[in-house]
Amino acid sequence: MAQKPGIPKGTRDFSPVEMAKRNYIFNTIKDVYALYGFQQIETPAMENLSTLMGKYGEEGDKLLFKILNSGDFMHGMTADEVASTSTLKLAAKFCEKGLRYDLTVPFARYVVQHREELALPFKRYQIQPVWRADRPQKGRYREFYQCDADVVGSESLLNEVELMQIVDTVFTRFGVRVCIKINNRKILTGIAEMIGQADKIVDITVAIDKLDKIGLDAVNAELAESGIPAEAIEKLQPIIKLSGTNAEKLQTMKEVLKDSEIGVKGVEETEFILSKLGALSADAQMLNNAIELDLTLARGLNYYTGAIFEVKALDVQIGSITGGGRYDNLTGIFGLPGLSGVGISFGADRIFDVLNQLDLYPKGAVNATQLLFVNFGEKEADYCLPLLAKVRAAGIAAEIYPDTVKMKKQMSYANAKQIPYVAIVGESELAEGKVNVKNMTTGEQMLVEAERILECIQ
Amino acid sequence: MAQKPGIPKGTRDFSPVEMAKRNYIFNTIKDVYALYGFQQIETPAMENLSTLMGKYGEEGDKLLFKILNSGDFMHGMTADEVASTSTLKLAAKFCEKGLRYDLTVPFARYVVQHREELALPFKRYQIQPVWRADRPQKGRYREFYQCDADVVGSESLLNEVELMQIVDTVFTRFGVRVCIKINNRKILTGIAEMIGQADKIVDITVAIDKLDKIGLDAVNAELAESGIPAEAIEKLQPIIKLSGTNAEKLQTMKEVLKDSEIGVKGVEETEFILSKLGALSADAQMLNNAIELDLTLARGLNYYTGAIFEVKALDVQIGSITGGGRYDNLTGIFGLPGLSGVGISFGADRIFDVLNQLDLYPKGAVNATQLLFVNFGEKEADYCLPLLAKVRAAGIAAEIYPDTVKMKKQMSYANAKQIPYVAIVGESELAEGKVNVKNMTTGEQMLVEAERILECIQ
Repeated sequence: MAQKPGIPKGTRDFSPVEMAKRNYIFNTIKDVYALYGFQQIETPAMENLSTLMGKYGEEGDKLLFKILNSGDFMHGMTADEVASTSTLKLAAKFCEKGLRYDLTVPFARYVVQHREELALPFKRYQIQPVWRADRPQKGRYREFYQCDADVVGSESLLNEVELMQIVDTVFTRFGVRVCIKINNRKILTGIAEMIGQADKIVDITVAIDKLDKIGLDAVNAELAESGIPAEAIEKLQPIIKLSGTNAEKLQTMKEVLKDSEIGVKGVEETEFILSKLGALSADAQMLNNAIELDLTLARGLNYYTGAIFEVKALDVQIGSITGGGRYDNLTGIFGLPGLSGVGISFGADRIFDVLNQLDLYPKGAVNATQLLFVNFGEKEADYCLPLLAKVRAAGIAAEIYPDTVKMKKQMSYANAKQIPYVAIVGESELAEGKVNVKNMTTGEQMLVEAERILECIQ
Repeated sequence: MAQKPGIPKGTRDFSPVEMAKRNYIFNTIKDVYALYGFQQIETPAMENLSTLMGKYGEEGDKLLFKILNSGDFMHGMTADEVASTSTLKLAAKFCEKGLRYDLTVPFARYVVQHREELALPFKRYQIQPVWRADRPQKGRYREFYQCDADVVGSESLLNEVELMQIVDTVFTRFGVRVCIKINNRKILTGIAEMIGQADKIVDITVAIDKLDKIGLDAVNAELAESGIPAEAIEKLQPIIKLSGTNAEKLQTMKEVLKDSEIGVKGVEETEFILSKLGALSADAQMLNNAIELDLTLARGLNYYTGAIFEVKALDVQIGSITGGGRYDNLTGIFGLPGLSGVGISFGADRIFDVLNQLDLYPKGAVNATQLLFVNFGEKEADYCLPLLAKVRAAGIAAEIYPDTVKMKKQMSYANAKQIPYVAIVGESELAEGKVNVKNMTTGEQMLVEAERILECIQ
């Protein structure tokens, strides 16, 4: 036999069982998004490269999958012209389109293109694959789904509050215990301002993050090593040692940042969000999961301008499973300035792993066909077909084995598909107008009148 | 303001209303597929070009979207080599991957690649976009969804029977009256054999198809013109004039094709399928829609080997909205011979148009948010938030307008999103612990105790 065909590295096929699990994840997220008034859109897989290029940094441009122009993509270039053009520029000549790299830039493009049709604030969600020419490795794929919800055209912090509620509701439905971490870019900017080290904010958060592991002295040493003066490190001490409830942390930060206008703004925003969520007392009243102010949270610093969120699973060792934040001027790059956005993105692949590890998929999510009719021959099949139609009319997924083959083969088909009930109609059942229904889990068999078949499986 | 950004020609954005309608279509099809024991899979958007090339004819190869290799796609070719190589060969050098062109070839690849995991017969469905570098025109896109179901690894005609039932169930659920047309490649081959004109079968079906429009004499003239000898045309007369019930047609065909082994086989197969569907009597007992033997149906002659299906809407002028058939040796191209397949494909874009024209979308499919809380300020919003949580906990999609802006703007937001109820809490409602719920359709307002809010909207 020829060599088995394969698929491009970093891509995946999804088998029926994986699909059922993934659909359970996507549908849960969709349902909650819709419950909060978000509406679904879809954008094309291919965008013009002019839409995508320059939006993800120089590294990102390299990771875009580019699509060769149809037909004569060389459009008459001479050998000399080819020789004198860089690979990057040739790619730009040969390709006008690329595969989308994320859902945010296409969303910004969508908002600008359709702005006359949109009722702002526009609450949209989008669940589609994205493509990145990254080096594939465990847990990193070249094609993967993103599940984003964003509100654009509203600066109200109630949007942040609702996004946290969405996160809480989704993970409550999954049965996964999480900690929702929240920070604010303005607080980080305030800290950097306060110590006069605007460019050192990442070093600072990375060092502070190690406090539990390496202790205060080592953290301070690391800060000094990264070039932060002793005086500034001194000022950072209350921030490094920050602890207690969210309310206590906010109180301390208010004090520490009192001279930084933007820092105070960040603290106030966080206070608003946490208070609406009832998360300033020890027990969050509106949430099932804990929400925690975490100053070391510093994701997306090159685009987030306000709140920053991240979600960690409590019972599985895995990176962030959801994240998001507020970004001012989402659509400015496409010529429509002044629209602020805030969004979240669920990490479907990691959530898939978490639910697998904790064995949290509801049984019905994976099982499909409930009943298989064994096929003993045309006469028996003729007897079964109306029964099968009746079972399906009751909304129960059912099949008849299409071929008349050995019973053993049919039963192993039922087992492979994890079909819980098998209906057996041989000569004697046919003669008596009965059906023999086997429960594949218990092995129990019930011989019933044909018209009572539904009772056996409901 | 800068020029509006756009998307590649032949691609589309789907707005919330379009998405809701499309989801209604996809979910209906999915539900029915699952009811019949089909399981969903997904394959990557990108396939190796070695998988795709040569599967769709020369024209198809040209219509494949090819993806430029990442990094140094020139891999050391000199400018002279580039200049002396044909565009087609260059494309092959620069690109290893392409976007899938349909769902059938990726499915065949999937079956071969995963054959050890599969319980045959494998009944899979797949709903994903495909891409073709076709010239865009009305109703023809470069990115569009296919909704395929196929059974592979079973030669039983019960599979054909079930696919017809699926078609019938889906369109019954949509409320669209259709005619399901059925033919068989073997009958067509038998006709060609009988008159000794194997290569003229398309000309013959095209000519016969015009009988109603141009009359018998003109059809015969056209057949003669396409080079079919008078004697053969004579033999074709009973086929051209074929009419009556399915049973009558089959009876005639049996007679006419009695000397062609393959032709008789085709008639018998059709007879089996129609008899199981109860479609040999005037009223189809197992179907809501009519099924009709139509010898002029000649789609997919280069791959179908047995039954051929096509579905026409009765109340809208539009081409075929669903089609399919049996193809032997689906996986032979990938080195796994001997597996027969049979499948159908719903044309989602055309079904979208049909449901639009007949106004058949159920109301709930398009409406999303049921209730909007107007936002008069922080105090009022604080009062509304727990009520909002209560409404959502009851499974009802609801929102609060995030910003405190003029009532008029908030009401026009509700109108734009077609939200049927608006909850208004001003100072007096707040003082009395009440909510004013406005029915946006009737204009009626109800002032109720806050805790009774659910009653107003259920």
